[in-house]
Amino acid sequence: MELKLQDGLIPAIVQDAKTSEVLMLGYMNQEAYDLTLRTGYVTFYSRSRRKLWVKGESSGHRLVVKQVRIDCDQDAVLVLAELAGAGCCHLGYRSCFFRSVTADGGVQVIAQRDFDPDQVYSGEKR
Amino acid sequence: MELKLQDGLIPAIVQDAKTSEVLMLGYMNQEAYDLTLRTGYVTFYSRSRRKLWVKGESSGHRLVVKQVRIDCDQDAVLVLAELAGAGCCHLGYRSCFFRSVTADGGVQVIAQRDFDPDQVYSGEKR
Repeated sequence: MELKLQDGLIPAIVQDAKTSEVLMLGYMNQEAYDLTLRTGYVTFYSRSRRKLWVKGESSGHRLVVKQVRIDCDQDAVLVLAELAGAGCCHLGYRSCFFRSVTADGGVQVIAQRDFDPDQVYSGEKR
Repeated sequence: MELKLQDGLIPAIVQDAKTSEVLMLGYMNQEAYDLTLRTGYVTFYSRSRRKLWVKGESSGHRLVVKQVRIDCDQDAVLVLAELAGAGCCHLGYRSCFFRSVTADGGVQVIAQRDFDPDQVYSGEKR
């Protein structure tokens, strides 16, 4: 099955396999996608650091793959995963989508912090 | 709240507000995002047709916005929506992610068709 990459990348949604919560969106190149399938750990390509990024490699909060789905156009990936750790977000939340947009265009935090990011991330966010 | 657009676009995940199923991923430009908030109907920017695209405008299967969330980096949107119709996918499925990737790298259909796309779409897929 061939991925339809754009500039070498495909967006990958990660959904909690147990709670169905959408945890984050990252990008994979072909190698990251292949590694995700082969290793069973969600692996992205970091656009800012320009290298492969095993999610949780420094925090320990890895994402264990349960199922990988592909969309109709083969240009988006959905990974159902179990979070081996307290949270996915480098700001200390379980999901990166911890804010909702309010009627006036502002934002409101709708989740509670699950961990202290300063104690988990020594340097780069991962 | 300012969106971090890439080439003028931001990826937008649509999740079923009732079932939590991830239905599709599309792209919004600033105008599509503003219209989504203002009209209450999920509106994308079609990269192939290069114009605004109210999801379901031809099929009638609109997506009624229940909540819009933004991620930590403000470069991805998650819309919780109710599907006013049988399905989101132009191939006749409720979700565009109706196939899972198998161990040998192939794909397997994991959902049942919910409607006949030939009876819904006269021309362009929407």
